[in-house]
Amino acid sequence: MTERTSALIPLRWSDMDAYGHVNNVQYLRLLEDARIAGFEDWFGPHGSESLLEGGVIVARTEVEYLRPLVYRRAPVQIDMWVSRLGGASFDVGYELRDPAEMGDAVYMRAETTMSAYDFAGERPRRLRDSEREVLRSRLAEPVALRRRR
Amino acid sequence: MTERTSALIPLRWSDMDAYGHVNNVQYLRLLEDARIAGFEDWFGPHGSESLLEGGVIVARTEVEYLRPLVYRRAPVQIDMWVSRLGGASFDVGYELRDPAEMGDAVYMRAETTMSAYDFAGERPRRLRDSEREVLRSRLAEPVALRRRR
Amino acid sequence: MTERTSALIPLRWSDMDAYGHVNNVQYLRLLEDARIAGFEDWFGPHGSESLLEGGVIVARTEVEYLRPLVYRRAPVQIDMWVSRLGGASFDVGYELRDPAEMGDAVYMRAETTMSAYDFAGERPRRLRDSEREVLRSRLAEPVALRRRR
Amino acid sequence: MTERTSALIPLRWSDMDAYGHVNNVQYLRLLEDARIAGFEDWFGPHGSESLLEGGVIVARTEVEYLRPLVYRRAPVQIDMWVSRLGGASFDVGYELRDPAEMGDAVYMRAETTMSAYDFAGERPRRLRDSEREVLRSRLAEPVALRRRR
Repeated sequence: MTERTSALIPLRWSDMDAYGHVNNVQYLRLLEDARIAGFEDWFGPHGSESLLEGGVIVARTEVEYLRPLVYRRAPVQIDMWVSRLGGASFDVGYELRDPAEMGDAVYMRAETTMSAYDFAGERPRRLRDSEREVLRSRLAEPVALRRRR
Repeated sequence: MTERTSALIPLRWSDMDAYGHVNNVQYLRLLEDARIAGFEDWFGPHGSESLLEGGVIVARTEVEYLRPLVYRRAPVQIDMWVSRLGGASFDVGYELRDPAEMGDAVYMRAETTMSAYDFAGERPRRLRDSEREVLRSRLAEPVALRRRR
Repeated sequence: MTERTSALIPLRWSDMDAYGHVNNVQYLRLLEDARIAGFEDWFGPHGSESLLEGGVIVARTEVEYLRPLVYRRAPVQIDMWVSRLGGASFDVGYELRDPAEMGDAVYMRAETTMSAYDFAGERPRRLRDSEREVLRSRLAEPVALRRRR
Repeated sequence: MTERTSALIPLRWSDMDAYGHVNNVQYLRLLEDARIAGFEDWFGPHGSESLLEGGVIVARTEVEYLRPLVYRRAPVQIDMWVSRLGGASFDVGYELRDPAEMGDAVYMRAETTMSAYDFAGERPRRLRDSEREVLRSRLAEPVALRRRR
């Protein structure tokens, strides 16, 4: 079974909104940094010959909020994996958990579609073979989004 | 045919990220303010007996990014409508356009599931009849998300 | 007497933090957009031959919070003027008011030092004569910061 | 000599703006989380009988940007200490450094004035003796802001 990649992402106090919970929009901010950590794990450090250099953009995001989060200093854990692999795009699945918590409660599930993009030429591109090889090794199950089931 | 509600939402320079485009996460920030404007239009000003007082939370968001946006001082236009009406939740559909642009290009399509929530009791609740009546008058077509078609 | 330049800057609901007031950091975010509007008024639209093209960076910020702000849909008013003019930098003074309010209450006073900067050469530069001419026409009193008096 | 309190604060990729550097406003966001860590160190965890429970608000901020910062995954180091102690307010001094860097380069210096505030009564308050005792033990030199020298 393909292993997921885990990133520990610290919250910021300002992630909370006037209701005193981590704001729904900020979860996507957490995914952004988890993705940077995960891609570095998968493709090597940013700046070298890596996927991020080849270029990808977020083309779609789907997120389900399952349990509220309140700011604390300990980071949250975001697990990620490839949930679909295409020729010019791929999907990344995410689950957010609290590593300090007993049990296995999921606070948020999400999926982003990443489209390969040629930033210099400002146009979509196909995934390179080397990129697809890396992504295939991370390919696992679809995200268990409620709406789809 | 049910009319959509339009809100003019100003961008902020800081909505752009290091790539020089409005960051994908910030689109949800724009939806947040569009929703406040739209709900005020549908239910009356916040603070009076309105839906927002009854309490709703964002339970799910799905967003497709279709064209890049760059900061400019003129606001963007976000159209919104009810795309599904249930007993304890409803979906809101959104489309983002540039009112200064000829044609009808859609920059982003999104849908959020809003769950009725009793903030005092900290638990889900059912939609009141008065809320459902308002929402039914705004009910229109599903959001034309590519992934679903 | 030199007239100040006024910009109407909309709040966002997310400017509020868990205490239910506009967060102290977000006031600087409001100044950022006020400055874009003000510089466009002083130097012409961004993208033409303007000061912003010549290049300036924020080198210092000083801000005093006088009255709390709560989100509302009506914009706040930020007045700005040049409070000091040097050879390679200048200061901009700001006051934030509520245009809907009777009286003249100031919610925030601030000053930013703007340093002329050559982005291509990545080094400080001197202000051009044409820039200094524009700035001199906007030069007015120092900012009435409490700490300094 | 009074020791400073150091907090390691992670950057977020979104701290960068369209110029590709950490945005000037975001430095205050970093100070916010450094202050939470520092106050917890000085007064005990938030939620117990601590200064933050007694209540303080940010009344003033002064910040000088000395060197540009670019996002990287390693956290920055923010040192903080009490730079002035009054009867109803105190100042906190901050310096931001890169712990991975040889030498002792300061990227940012700042000072915030914290006013004791009674949130329940919605009015300023005097510092308690117990609070002043803690703060006095952290009292050190003024912040070496250029503008003041």
